[in-house]
Amino acid sequence: MKLTKLLISTILMAGIGRAAFAFEALPAKPPIPADNKITKDKIELGKMLYFDPRLSVSGTVSCNSCHNLMSGGDDSRPVSIGVEGKRGGRSAPTVWNSAFLSVQFWDGRAPSLEEQAKGPIANPVEMGATHELVVKRISQIPEYVELFKRVFGKDDVTIDNAVITHNSPFDRYLKGNKKALTAQQVKGMKLFESTGCVSCHSGPNFSGPLLPQGTGFFMKFPTFPGSIYEKKYKLTEDMGRYTVTKNEADKHMWRVPTLRNVALTAPYFHNGSVKTLHEAVKVMAKVQLNKDLSDSDADDIVSFLKSLTGQFPVQTMPRLPATPGESLVGDQK
Amino acid sequence: MKLTKLLISTILMAGIGRAAFAFEALPAKPPIPADNKITKDKIELGKMLYFDPRLSVSGTVSCNSCHNLMSGGDDSRPVSIGVEGKRGGRSAPTVWNSAFLSVQFWDGRAPSLEEQAKGPIANPVEMGATHELVVKRISQIPEYVELFKRVFGKDDVTIDNAVITHNSPFDRYLKGNKKALTAQQVKGMKLFESTGCVSCHSGPNFSGPLLPQGTGFFMKFPTFPGSIYEKKYKLTEDMGRYTVTKNEADKHMWRVPTLRNVALTAPYFHNGSVKTLHEAVKVMAKVQLNKDLSDSDADDIVSFLKSLTGQFPVQTMPRLPATPGESLVGDQK
Repeated sequence: MKLTKLLISTILMAGIGRAAFAFEALPAKPPIPADNKITKDKIELGKMLYFDPRLSVSGTVSCNSCHNLMSGGDDSRPVSIGVEGKRGGRSAPTVWNSAFLSVQFWDGRAPSLEEQAKGPIANPVEMGATHELVVKRISQIPEYVELFKRVFGKDDVTIDNAVITHNSPFDRYLKGNKKALTAQQVKGMKLFESTGCVSCHSGPNFSGPLLPQGTGFFMKFPTFPGSIYEKKYKLTEDMGRYTVTKNEADKHMWRVPTLRNVALTAPYFHNGSVKTLHEAVKVMAKVQLNKDLSDSDADDIVSFLKSLTGQFPVQTMPRLPATPGESLVGDQK
Repeated sequence: MKLTKLLISTILMAGIGRAAFAFEALPAKPPIPADNKITKDKIELGKMLYFDPRLSVSGTVSCNSCHNLMSGGDDSRPVSIGVEGKRGGRSAPTVWNSAFLSVQFWDGRAPSLEEQAKGPIANPVEMGATHELVVKRISQIPEYVELFKRVFGKDDVTIDNAVITHNSPFDRYLKGNKKALTAQQVKGMKLFESTGCVSCHSGPNFSGPLLPQGTGFFMKFPTFPGSIYEKKYKLTEDMGRYTVTKNEADKHMWRVPTLRNVALTAPYFHNGSVKTLHEAVKVMAKVQLNKDLSDSDADDIVSFLKSLTGQFPVQTMPRLPATPGESLVGDQK
C-alpha cells in the first residue's frame, strides 16, 4: 500500500500535462507468476473451467457469461446478471489483457488472477455456488479429475493462444508504421497525453505501470469532487477500495482499468453508468483533471482510443467433459 | 398430419419386436432445405448469431446458453433457465444432429430449423425479446448489416464443420469395424432391437425415419397408461402436440427425440424428470412397450446407447461484431 500511494502521489504531481511520455506497445506475453507456470494442459483445463456453467449453482452461468471472450471480454451491461437474474453491484471489467494488471477487481481486492478467479464462483449474485459444491461437482466428472492430476504433475512451460490482444493500430504505429493511425488518431493521442489522461492510463496496458503482482495501481475517482457528473452518474455511491480495507484514505480509490479495447466495452465506469465513450472521456477529463474538453477534442481522443482495439486470437471452443450418470445441476433455487 | 399418423400406426403395428431391423449410420451431411442453401459466410453469420447474447432482452442469454455446443448440445438441466431466472416448461433438446429431424420442438410445432430458431428469441421465459427488438439491434451493428447483405447475395454451396457428430463407435461398427462395440454393447444393441425400442428410435438419427421437412415423426407417450412411472415422473401433465393442434388425437403425442449422444444429455424426457439413463430406459420399456426390463438388461441397453456418442467437430469461436457507440443491452427488466 505504501508503494502504491507513493506511486500515485508521484504521478499526480509529476505526470499531468508532461509531454513526450513514453507510450508502450502491448507485449506478446504477459507476466507469468512464478508459482503458476503455464503448460498446454493447464491452458486447456483452464479454458474448460472458464466455459463450464456447472461451476454456477444453477448450471447456467460460466465465467464467459459476464466476461465474453467472443466480444470485448465483458458483457456490454451496466452491471452483470448472475444466477436467478440477480444483479451485481459493479460493471464487469474486460478479461482481455487482464494478466497485465497487478491487482484484480475494481477495488483491487485480489492480488492476482489466481485469487480473482475464486471470487465470482462463490458470490451469491454471480455464480452463486460454494467452493465445496464446485469441488464436489468436479470430483464427480472423471475427465476433470484426470486433467487436474495431469496438469499438476507437469511443469513444462508454454504459451498458446493467450488472452492478449496484440498488434492494435496503436501498437503497429509505435513499432514504426506511421500509417497505422489516422491523422485524427494521432491528434487524439497527443491530446490524450497533453490533457493528462496518460498520468494514470500509462504502461503497455494503459492501466498504469507494470507492478509486482499484488501491488495494485489505484487512483481516486473522482479526484475533483463536486462536478455535475458526480451526481448525474452516481460516481460516489460506491466507496471503492474502502469497502476492502476500511481505511479512510481508500474511499473512492479504484484500480485504474485498462483502455485496451475500451471501444468494445460500453457502458463505462465501475457502475456502468455512462453509455458512450465520448461522454466517458468528457467525464474523466472533468472529474480527474478538472478540464472541460470540447466535443471536438473528445472526438479526437475517442478516435485514438479506438486505435487500442487489438487483434483477437482465434480461439477453439473447449469440449466440456461429460457428466457421467446424471446431471449435476438440478433445479435447485 | 395424415402421413404422420399413417406412419405411426404402421410402425406401431409392424415394428415391435421385429428382428433384423436395418440400423443406419449417421450421414456426414444433413438434408439441406432447397430454400436455405448453405454457404461459408452463412455458417459464420449463423454461428455469430447463435452465440450472441444480444439476441436476448437482457443481453445474457444466447442460443448456446441452453443448447451448449461445448457439451451435449443441451444444458444438463430439467428445464432451462432463461432471462431473469425464468424457467421453461420443457427440457432443452440437443442441438447436435437436429438437422436430421423433420420437425422441431418437443411438440413438433416448427416444421424446420429455420422456423424453430425464431421461437426462443421471442419466448418470454427464454430470451424474452421481440423480433422487432432483435432486428433493431442487429441493424445497429454494422458488421451484422454487412454480413447479412453478403450472405443473401450469394448461393455457392458448402458445408464446413456442420453440427453433426459422426463416427461414433456404433457407426464404426456398422461400417465393418466389429471391434468398435464391446460384447455388452452388442448385447445391448440386440436387446434394443428385440425389446422394440427401435420401432420408434429408428433411422440414422435414432429419431425415426428421415421424412420430408415439416412432416414430423410423433409418438404417444405414454402409450401404455397407468404405470407407476406415470405419476412418479408426471409424464401426462403436459399435453404435448395437443397444445399446438388442439386435436384430441394429439394429446400426449411427442416428436420422437434422437438418441445420438443421449448419454451426455441427462436429465431425460420432455420435462427432464428422470435423472439417469438407466431409469429412462426402464421407464420407456414400461410405458411404451409394456415390458418390465431387468436391471441387467437396462444396463446392457445403456451400454449400447453410450456407443451412440459421436465425434464432436472442433469448433472455433466466432468473434461477435462490436456494438458501435453504446451498449444495446441496457438494464431493462
